[in-house]
Amino acid sequence: MALNRRYVFAQRPHGMPTGEEFELVEEAMPSPGRNQALIRSCYLSVDPYMRGRMREGPSYAPPWQVGESPTAGAVGRVEASDIVGLPVGSLVAGTWDWAEYVLSDGHGLRRLDPSGAPPQAALGVLGMPGLTAYFGTFDVARPRAGDTFVVSAAAGAVGSLAGQLAKQAGCRVVGIAGTKEKIDFLREELAFDAAVDYRAEGDLKGALRDACPTGVDAYFDNVGGAVTAAVAPLMNTHGRVAVCGQIATYNQTRREPPDVAWDLVGRRLRIEGFLVSDFQPRFAEALARLEHWVLSGRLRYRETIVEGFERMPEALVGLFKGSNFGKQVVKVYAP
Amino acid sequence: MALNRRYVFAQRPHGMPTGEEFELVEEAMPSPGRNQALIRSCYLSVDPYMRGRMREGPSYAPPWQVGESPTAGAVGRVEASDIVGLPVGSLVAGTWDWAEYVLSDGHGLRRLDPSGAPPQAALGVLGMPGLTAYFGTFDVARPRAGDTFVVSAAAGAVGSLAGQLAKQAGCRVVGIAGTKEKIDFLREELAFDAAVDYRAEGDLKGALRDACPTGVDAYFDNVGGAVTAAVAPLMNTHGRVAVCGQIATYNQTRREPPDVAWDLVGRRLRIEGFLVSDFQPRFAEALARLEHWVLSGRLRYRETIVEGFERMPEALVGLFKGSNFGKQVVKVYAP
Repeated sequence: MALNRRYVFAQRPHGMPTGEEFELVEEAMPSPGRNQALIRSCYLSVDPYMRGRMREGPSYAPPWQVGESPTAGAVGRVEASDIVGLPVGSLVAGTWDWAEYVLSDGHGLRRLDPSGAPPQAALGVLGMPGLTAYFGTFDVARPRAGDTFVVSAAAGAVGSLAGQLAKQAGCRVVGIAGTKEKIDFLREELAFDAAVDYRAEGDLKGALRDACPTGVDAYFDNVGGAVTAAVAPLMNTHGRVAVCGQIATYNQTRREPPDVAWDLVGRRLRIEGFLVSDFQPRFAEALARLEHWVLSGRLRYRETIVEGFERMPEALVGLFKGSNFGKQVVKVYAP
Repeated sequence: MALNRRYVFAQRPHGMPTGEEFELVEEAMPSPGRNQALIRSCYLSVDPYMRGRMREGPSYAPPWQVGESPTAGAVGRVEASDIVGLPVGSLVAGTWDWAEYVLSDGHGLRRLDPSGAPPQAALGVLGMPGLTAYFGTFDVARPRAGDTFVVSAAAGAVGSLAGQLAKQAGCRVVGIAGTKEKIDFLREELAFDAAVDYRAEGDLKGALRDACPTGVDAYFDNVGGAVTAAVAPLMNTHGRVAVCGQIATYNQTRREPPDVAWDLVGRRLRIEGFLVSDFQPRFAEALARLEHWVLSGRLRYRETIVEGFERMPEALVGLFKGSNFGKQVVKVYAP
């Protein structure tokens, strides 16, 4: 009898996760009942927000429970189906357990068009990260032509898209990233106006000042911490800060005070956190635009594809070390 | 020959001002030339923002220069005039030097109606503090009926008005202040729903939690520092913070990191600094409403009137010690 494999969340990390938090277990292959489908995972997504779910206590997303399977954004192929309109062979995107095979009642599944973008794009540019970049840029950071727009984690899944959207809106875009390869990508492939390597620069504030000679009008922040502290003094009057993530702080074992000198009153800054889920009613509108821009070549994206279900924990841990380039996904099975 | 008296800014303070920063000097009485008026100061305003002007370096308002006279919001009486439409005896409000008599070309003067509110109200509820409360509340904090609205420095010139405006908008209003007398005033005279004494409470966070059992939807912040750090963890999802002032930090000799744990992303907070001057085009609209509310008794205000021009420095220093109650003004001469 064929076996299924899944991960169980075995223990909460203290500080930086090691991968030991997840245990791979075998179980009987599930069998779909009435109005159910059996889906084979093709791609599973790993994302920074997952660090929050590893933590106990209240947050916007409920914490993963020890002993249960964690969930992920996922793309899969329908292998057996008793659901009308969901034939065997369909490609679908959704959220399900870290498992090779899952059962679904069809709820929350989105069918993918096999003639469109590659299916795993539904986990990146045409999924949660793309939507996050879209709403964070247009609705929160609000770029205006001529603005200097700075983005941190600029070679990441969200940052690389936010910067390109701001560029389309006529901004001067400055990216911050952590390797020479990423900096080259931002400058050469994405045509950012400047890119600053926060790891290589001895004087990050000075390097940012040089990259932003007229100050910063909008800052799309994915990281927090020391990078954000270096951007803060450059904010112009009526500057906007879209706070998307704070990955620099996710693995802190105790909260360190963010020594960020926002001149809130003098510069009349607006600092606003957001979650993509709040924009759910407008997802269809945004996905249609993003897909058009991707297919027409106006929006570029990178993926880091890690091969093999058994590498899920490693792929997730890599996010917190900056080892991903663009969207990090795990390929479980080629559809 | 009659002499005029004025203050000269003699030295920049280090930390808390002592009053020694200002030197009282005598000079010949000024004499108005063509298209000029001689104005006698009746009331001069002292305000927290003046601490910023005592500091060197760029800010939204240019720093006071050592050896020159500081300026203040002021109400005066026209004593001699060669300006058409500005007869002797007119009461005017404007901004001018810390002096008993000043010359004016009429620019920036607002004539006061002697049958309306008392003239010094033009420095408080019907002046800059009133406008600050109005725009900070309605345009930045944006109260909604049913919201819990917290205001710091709640017995001050701005805070006492912001809380009342939020109350009018249907909020549950909680004030934070630093003496029993102020707390009683907030509860009894202004009918705030709760008031917390930040000096008397051993456990400020706990006291605020009790005062805000359903969390905080909007926070009108005049102080920053430890008070704001205690409010931060209570902010509800989509909470708004209108940052009006940070008086707790104005006299710091070195910047202390504000250990404020805003859950920016998880709670999707908006933190926005503002300056009343940005709303200048709408001042007339706001003043008309404020005056209507004052004259109809819907908006109450307190003043601390210090008598005597020679007490200007003392009145200013008192602001940073919380010795004012409501709007602090100096009465120079009864019109």
